Amino acid sequence: MSGNTIGKLFTLTTFGESHGVAIGGIIDGCPAGIAIDIENIQKDLDRRKPGTSRHVTPRSESDTVQLLSGTFEGQSTGTPIGFVIYNEDQRSKDYSAIKDKFRPGHADYTYWQKYGIRDYRGGGRSSARETASRVAGGAIAKAVLQQLANVQIRAYVSQIGEHKLNFDNWESVSQNPFNCPNEHQVPVLDRYLYDIRKSGDSIGAEITLVIDNLPTGLGEPVFDRLDADLAHAMMSINAVKGVAIGDGFDCVSRRGSEFRDERTATEGFISNHAGGILGGISSGQQIIVRTAFKPTSSILIPGRTTDTANQDTDVVTKGRHDPCVGLRACPIVEAMAALVLCDHYLRQRGQNNHF
Amino acid sequence: MSGNTIGKLFTLTTFGESHGVAIGGIIDGCPAGIAIDIENIQKDLDRRKPGTSRHVTPRSESDTVQLLSGTFEGQSTGTPIGFVIYNEDQRSKDYSAIKDKFRPGHADYTYWQKYGIRDYRGGGRSSARETASRVAGGAIAKAVLQQLANVQIRAYVSQIGEHKLNFDNWESVSQNPFNCPNEHQVPVLDRYLYDIRKSGDSIGAEITLVIDNLPTGLGEPVFDRLDADLAHAMMSINAVKGVAIGDGFDCVSRRGSEFRDERTATEGFISNHAGGILGGISSGQQIIVRTAFKPTSSILIPGRTTDTANQDTDVVTKGRHDPCVGLRACPIVEAMAALVLCDHYLRQRGQNNHF
Amino acid sequence: MSGNTIGKLFTLTTFGESHGVAIGGIIDGCPAGIAIDIENIQKDLDRRKPGTSRHVTPRSESDTVQLLSGTFEGQSTGTPIGFVIYNEDQRSKDYSAIKDKFRPGHADYTYWQKYGIRDYRGGGRSSARETASRVAGGAIAKAVLQQLANVQIRAYVSQIGEHKLNFDNWESVSQNPFNCPNEHQVPVLDRYLYDIRKSGDSIGAEITLVIDNLPTGLGEPVFDRLDADLAHAMMSINAVKGVAIGDGFDCVSRRGSEFRDERTATEGFISNHAGGILGGISSGQQIIVRTAFKPTSSILIPGRTTDTANQDTDVVTKGRHDPCVGLRACPIVEAMAALVLCDHYLRQRGQNNHF
Amino acid sequence: MSGNTIGKLFTLTTFGESHGVAIGGIIDGCPAGIAIDIENIQKDLDRRKPGTSRHVTPRSESDTVQLLSGTFEGQSTGTPIGFVIYNEDQRSKDYSAIKDKFRPGHADYTYWQKYGIRDYRGGGRSSARETASRVAGGAIAKAVLQQLANVQIRAYVSQIGEHKLNFDNWESVSQNPFNCPNEHQVPVLDRYLYDIRKSGDSIGAEITLVIDNLPTGLGEPVFDRLDADLAHAMMSINAVKGVAIGDGFDCVSRRGSEFRDERTATEGFISNHAGGILGGISSGQQIIVRTAFKPTSSILIPGRTTDTANQDTDVVTKGRHDPCVGLRACPIVEAMAALVLCDHYLRQRGQNNHF
Repeated sequence: MSGNTIGKLFTLTTFGESHGVAIGGIIDGCPAGIAIDIENIQKDLDRRKPGTSRHVTPRSESDTVQLLSGTFEGQSTGTPIGFVIYNEDQRSKDYSAIKDKFRPGHADYTYWQKYGIRDYRGGGRSSARETASRVAGGAIAKAVLQQLANVQIRAYVSQIGEHKLNFDNWESVSQNPFNCPNEHQVPVLDRYLYDIRKSGDSIGAEITLVIDNLPTGLGEPVFDRLDADLAHAMMSINAVKGVAIGDGFDCVSRRGSEFRDERTATEGFISNHAGGILGGISSGQQIIVRTAFKPTSSILIPGRTTDTANQDTDVVTKGRHDPCVGLRACPIVEAMAALVLCDHYLRQRGQNNHF
Repeated sequence: MSGNTIGKLFTLTTFGESHGVAIGGIIDGCPAGIAIDIENIQKDLDRRKPGTSRHVTPRSESDTVQLLSGTFEGQSTGTPIGFVIYNEDQRSKDYSAIKDKFRPGHADYTYWQKYGIRDYRGGGRSSARETASRVAGGAIAKAVLQQLANVQIRAYVSQIGEHKLNFDNWESVSQNPFNCPNEHQVPVLDRYLYDIRKSGDSIGAEITLVIDNLPTGLGEPVFDRLDADLAHAMMSINAVKGVAIGDGFDCVSRRGSEFRDERTATEGFISNHAGGILGGISSGQQIIVRTAFKPTSSILIPGRTTDTANQDTDVVTKGRHDPCVGLRACPIVEAMAALVLCDHYLRQRGQNNHF
Repeated sequence: MSGNTIGKLFTLTTFGESHGVAIGGIIDGCPAGIAIDIENIQKDLDRRKPGTSRHVTPRSESDTVQLLSGTFEGQSTGTPIGFVIYNEDQRSKDYSAIKDKFRPGHADYTYWQKYGIRDYRGGGRSSARETASRVAGGAIAKAVLQQLANVQIRAYVSQIGEHKLNFDNWESVSQNPFNCPNEHQVPVLDRYLYDIRKSGDSIGAEITLVIDNLPTGLGEPVFDRLDADLAHAMMSINAVKGVAIGDGFDCVSRRGSEFRDERTATEGFISNHAGGILGGISSGQQIIVRTAFKPTSSILIPGRTTDTANQDTDVVTKGRHDPCVGLRACPIVEAMAALVLCDHYLRQRGQNNHF
Repeated sequence: MSGNTIGKLFTLTTFGESHGVAIGGIIDGCPAGIAIDIENIQKDLDRRKPGTSRHVTPRSESDTVQLLSGTFEGQSTGTPIGFVIYNEDQRSKDYSAIKDKFRPGHADYTYWQKYGIRDYRGGGRSSARETASRVAGGAIAKAVLQQLANVQIRAYVSQIGEHKLNFDNWESVSQNPFNCPNEHQVPVLDRYLYDIRKSGDSIGAEITLVIDNLPTGLGEPVFDRLDADLAHAMMSINAVKGVAIGDGFDCVSRRGSEFRDERTATEGFISNHAGGILGGISSGQQIIVRTAFKPTSSILIPGRTTDTANQDTDVVTKGRHDPCVGLRACPIVEAMAALVLCDHYLRQRGQNNHF
């Protein structure tokens, strides 16, 4: 299938450009009888939405999602769920300043090379706005997983720049604009990001995803391993440059005797370096996945680049901007995980464990 | 499609257990007219083969691949290429010591949970022996990429335990048993791995993959991005716990002004933090991907675990073993990259750039 | 992938119920640079639309399609093309008469058995209204095929009830409400269908699809043969019960010496019993496919059935109805063919014929 | 995925040419715990095998299948099942007479046009020998369906040339070389086919497939309808030119009042014109599918054709030949049906009916 569909049994196909008419998608393969609450979908969209603090862009989209099909009297019917989010902030801005320029660090150059034509308005299809469709689709996947297996999917920001954020509790995460898992580091972050924004620059971030209560047995080796599909899903998010399962790259300098997770009859697994996946299959432990988000290239500091005529030029991204795009990424990471897990849950139900 | 196929237009489907009759696979979608040299396939298989130095397991497999279809007079015909590698070392060993035990760090427990039945001989399907099929299939993908676009795919070991290996030149890589990219560090590594083996333990490694001469425009956003598909392919390899594109996790602590890769008309891109992929599409720069291999759990140091009756027990992996499985992983990493790139090359040829 | 996507490189995914908010879909894999004229899409939709003669249902839908993404300044950009058709005739009718009854010949019973929940309003997802999404998607496929290879896809009604319709010319087809390929039989058909409608009954039809100017080489044996994919596409249309390529079922009583299509150097193929496909691959001849449409079960004559409580009951379809649903099927048949051919055209371009 | 894989959750991928080293395939997605009896697989292969009566070709293949993976102690393990059938009759025959000629009615011309290279030995990939892989894979699908749901899949020859064969009982089918469902017509057929063979000609046939005990609810509208996937599978068989579900093309001249299948509370459906599928979903009734097999083009009567230099020439197929290829097609039709049904059974189990 083409590049805008993810999943095999439970699929999301998305469409839409940043400044086109609308973005949206289709969830196909949703089991019938799932309660679909549009308020919950909207809640996740609102968590992703720009303009919710002084550290994220103030674009005034209401990001209101509409369901077009696939539900009846509040429940899924087993037929595809179409949804749409109209682009309200779609004013006829003047794009002449960047129309022919390849903004450094953006996909302008590669889209141009690939397609030979480019919707330059706000990044077009390569804009992070596209992830709103993923969040909407992911919210439906979350509902399936929650209602069928009580799976819980949560993410927090575990590092911003040099600041590693220590996990304290999940309540904190939703109570500050940084999705920081403790209250103590919030004032430092506030100052840190203020300074970065003031300097016209941006900074990277790391998100940690934690999945609780996932059944054992999800994952279809050897290629559709659960870790492989999660890596695919995470790396498909704009700005992600690295994915790690469990201890990730730390395993390089570890001994086998310390890395392997031993088991006892009473405790089960007594450590979780593997991050809850063995041989590509969920072990019933907590799933832990970390993703690295690069610093956005939309900054006020001019950058050298070329244009469509291959002439040297400079680019500045005007207007306000996110100094750290990772701050808004938690619901996106959760959504991508939910899509993968829901697909694997249904595949496992179809192929195994039934007799 | 089920879990043992990778790719969409150019696909590899594999089969086979460590100690069953044979392993093998089918390449489908190979363009007609490609020169297929079985010697080249065998060469990559020999690079992966155990028993080639004192640091890798001495299992005496000849790993001889046979082509069963899809070529005629030395060329691909466009029909599927079936191949098989018989398991020669398939003696009726005594597996009673591990038959009912879940070796820690292995997939024994999860396969048991998922399928309810398990071929316990040598790890069955979850054995790294399965990767020989990938290497064979990857060698065909390499031939396509080389003959159609002169793409060059190479990997080296960039870290073993605490030892970061500095890249000096490609010639060195093939001239030492560690795939180390410089000759200076070889003696230290030799001693280091000797000690680890002697202690009955194992150690992790990092592989760096470098792709030269890849055309611009490969990758199908938003889900089948080139980086996402590479992450999927790498994470599908046994023992891999992390994947990084370009600077990877280092981006978390970087500023946007230093991370974005600027361009000039004369030099093109003047840095490559992104690793050759922008917006999920190849930029024409060198592709750089790093993968983390965990230390193998097959070690002589006893480990606590449980058995199928959920009783506490201990496991020791007897016989000689690889102290560092990453050392044999270069051809596997190359093969997985080749499979992904060949698929994307044909997809791009089908969908774009033709008028 | 799930059941509402068709194609592999060029895909259409659809959503929508008869009396939900909207129907629509996503075309993914459309090459960039194709001129997309919404007037042409609308034209095909209007050909399918009910209410255009006294022989088809007068439901007052305007069936206006909106493009939501994937085009820029009149051209495709290579990104997915989302489109939507809102259901205007979506009044809150009283469905209590059929809410719990399984209308004979409809999918009410099987949807109920499969999903356990059913959007009973107007047939829900199983309504022929769903085919409007196919016609819209097919119009885009037609544009690709026309612009890249000048392929011409046309269909006519070749039989209604006992009346076989003789092909005279293509002009006639669009000049009568029966898509009859000659003017002479129109008066007879007019009377025939008037009588059937008056009797409260319905009648079947056969559609003949003719494709001109298709390049040789399309089709991917052994499973994705062109004839197999066309059969799949045709049989996926509501009410279709049979598909025939070339001479179809007549081949059963034919000798090999008369059925095989011979060739000469000057004329090429001198007959076309095979319908333009040999070994699953297009031969460069005219493609000929016939499909059988059953008589609709929405008739005024009461039928025996059961309800959700498995009680005996009767059903009558009230209101006006199509006495022959096949009459509106030409654009649907053309659309399904276009989707299949466009997919195969791009696959062939990706995999073959390029060196 | 590429053209040699069928199915989505339960897949068969095949490889192999008529006169290459071997043919074979991989079944992926087989649930664990299914008893796999190689004798049953071989039995179906023997039913397909040439040389079993004077009416089919006497090629002396033993067609012995070997399982290479995916089973352990007689049961499927959930991992892919690789299998191979070596080509024993692979002598270095002299093919110079047909090497450059396009045999009329065969795929020689289209393979040449598509791939630019052709394994001309015995038809290569387009040979009906390829169907042995389907029969082997289908036997595994049959085992799954039989063991999980007691589904019964059977086919008989319902017409040869002008001779319609009346169904009497299933026992007869296996007791004559024509798979004729009654004993009375056997003598006539014997004489009829003797005459056709003597004349150097061939004749077409129709196969009727009957599936009993299929659960309701299989099929994934709107594109992966059960009827659409069956049509795809049937039309993918060599020599098939038509597929009909239930009454098939007869529906064209039928009234809605007679065609719709009514229901009563005590009897359920009281007729079965639809062939057991409504809205693309199985209704729990008997599934009935008819397929038309063309007369083989491998006949002794010379035919006009062209060669690779586009010169006029004649072709005769020397040696003995099947006068009616449809006679051997019953196990192939059954296998293709089993593959489709097994895939849909697992998909339905994954997506629905579970809460």
